Amino acid sequence: MAAAAAVPAGALGPRDFDGWFTEVEAMWKGQRFSIEVEKVLLHKKSKYQEILVFDSKTWGRVLVLDGVIQLTTKDECSYQEMMAHVPLFCHQSPDRVLIVGGGDGGVLREVVKHGKVSDVTLCEIDTEVIAAAKEFFGDTVATAFDDEAVTIVVEDAAEFLKTRRNMFDVIIVDSSDPTDADAPATALYKPAFLKSCSDALRDGGILCMQGECLWLDSHRDLVKETLAAMRPLFGIRDYGAISIPTYPCGQIGMILAGKYDEEDIPSLKDRELFFRKPRRHLDLSLASGPLRYYSDYVHEAAFVLPPIMRNSLGSETCANFIASSDLPEGLPTPEEFRMLFVGMLGGGLILGMAIGRLVLPRLF
Amino acid sequence: MAAAAAVPAGALGPRDFDGWFTEVEAMWKGQRFSIEVEKVLLHKKSKYQEILVFDSKTWGRVLVLDGVIQLTTKDECSYQEMMAHVPLFCHQSPDRVLIVGGGDGGVLREVVKHGKVSDVTLCEIDTEVIAAAKEFFGDTVATAFDDEAVTIVVEDAAEFLKTRRNMFDVIIVDSSDPTDADAPATALYKPAFLKSCSDALRDGGILCMQGECLWLDSHRDLVKETLAAMRPLFGIRDYGAISIPTYPCGQIGMILAGKYDEEDIPSLKDRELFFRKPRRHLDLSLASGPLRYYSDYVHEAAFVLPPIMRNSLGSETCANFIASSDLPEGLPTPEEFRMLFVGMLGGGLILGMAIGRLVLPRLF
Repeated sequence: MAAAAAVPAGALGPRDFDGWFTEVEAMWKGQRFSIEVEKVLLHKKSKYQEILVFDSKTWGRVLVLDGVIQLTTKDECSYQEMMAHVPLFCHQSPDRVLIVGGGDGGVLREVVKHGKVSDVTLCEIDTEVIAAAKEFFGDTVATAFDDEAVTIVVEDAAEFLKTRRNMFDVIIVDSSDPTDADAPATALYKPAFLKSCSDALRDGGILCMQGECLWLDSHRDLVKETLAAMRPLFGIRDYGAISIPTYPCGQIGMILAGKYDEEDIPSLKDRELFFRKPRRHLDLSLASGPLRYYSDYVHEAAFVLPPIMRNSLGSETCANFIASSDLPEGLPTPEEFRMLFVGMLGGGLILGMAIGRLVLPRLF
Repeated sequence: MAAAAAVPAGALGPRDFDGWFTEVEAMWKGQRFSIEVEKVLLHKKSKYQEILVFDSKTWGRVLVLDGVIQLTTKDECSYQEMMAHVPLFCHQSPDRVLIVGGGDGGVLREVVKHGKVSDVTLCEIDTEVIAAAKEFFGDTVATAFDDEAVTIVVEDAAEFLKTRRNMFDVIIVDSSDPTDADAPATALYKPAFLKSCSDALRDGGILCMQGECLWLDSHRDLVKETLAAMRPLFGIRDYGAISIPTYPCGQIGMILAGKYDEEDIPSLKDRELFFRKPRRHLDLSLASGPLRYYSDYVHEAAFVLPPIMRNSLGSETCANFIASSDLPEGLPTPEEFRMLFVGMLGGGLILGMAIGRLVLPRLF
């Protein structure tokens, strides 16, 4: 069997990968993930990044940007569905949505399933990513570019957002990793960009950012920095986890932020549970088919973080302090329910009979 | 940077791995995970398998059996804690526990944290795994071999269990993968072994098996076969998911089975929720320190499977049919609660007064 080989970052055009594609480990030193290649379909350098598309032996078709796997058709459902449906179902009435990045069209495919959304803008810096998605993923991931609700803007989102005010109900930042200072995504983790997002959201608006992986020290640091930078801008902040095998460590997160003043939602518990509880429920008639990863339950469970992760975020997420008193065990069982009601009714009856027999005859 | 190299399965003694260890992909064709090696500490062939221990650059110390990563000291907490605490907290009063395999001592370390457990037997086929664990993981994973509650048996668990009847409250099968017909773990997925486990459990006993990964087709088939073989033996069966970066796809499962007749727990919903609700809660005073991955919440959330996984298990798990009516939203809010109670009390009062005023005077 051929040994795995790293892809030279500057290589251009179709080439032989010795049968395997191995991810560069810029942000996850000391570990590598490899996928067996069936056929390389595209390998080029755009103005912004290296674009690679190949058919794999066991993960379907794969899109790679700057040596980092963006999606495989076998497991993309978890990331796309959660990035779209978690913020959209947390919003009472999402009308206008902005997707930053997302040139592969996967998050877009999910957003247009929401009948409440009348207007979706996708702002992608690299037109060649959109072209590759249309050519190679037209029947799987890039299925919604021509939807009548969709506007495509090919522009740097950091520039695009500078002049937008109170325009969007939900902004979804579906970026690649900020692997180095030159990577297209690097500006999207800076405080200036977060401020632009806040300004561009309506009150009560929701920002959902690709949130990296809490198992990795360097990722966790980035998540904490981002959450800290969000604090003066967004009254509610949280982190939810998604299972996705072909991303580093098999886990990625969503960083969620709500444009509320803390006074708008004064109860700590309501803030803790804000993103955890969908405000609306999935109407399958809206969807083109059943969802593969998202459900009400999965939405809620995504915010249940193991102590090792929860503690690492310190006080930067609202959901850090959910105590065991919130457990469903604290609620009465159906049996206890029935006994309580019978008790209240019986108590009322006995007290009422006593009043009726002893007190009322003396009054009337 | 050096290319990753597969470890020759028969290689003996310390050797140079070109700086990287790459997992053999016997059960996960088309994908590979590699860890950068700092120093190889042990590489030998025992009677049963190839044993490799190395210090890694970013994942701490690593144990590998037959080319498959068993644990790294950085992420082992999730697997060990869930495999031990989920079945133990689902049992009302676990007194005697059997661990099958688990020669690294990690699950054992977690089991002895339970004060209710008076007797733990660890049945490991390969004494050299225990020796390697004691030598190289004595201060991290293999910390409980000398606990007074512990008995070590070096034997094939399939043989050991043939003569045991009604002895254990919980059996935890912490095996390696059944990579081929000769692998030590292969017999542990056969119906005959499941029957022995059922016989060796007391009524109301719980079996928890290493449950592989639902993202992988071949693993899913094994999980389904195992659940189907459990059906005549265990009235309650379920599958829970664990996040663990250095296992294939970053996810592994627990297959859980309860030795109950279906008539013992007649309600479908009670069967669905059986493993999802801890029967007892974590008493941190029992533990030597706070747990890193397990919590009441994490326990419950582990059984929330995305539709793509839940549907793939068909009718083989009890928890397949949990409907959205079980969502907490279906329960009354505290405000509705109060109104209901006031209504019942008031209704009883009015009815009682009428009876007391009108009916009772005619009777007495």
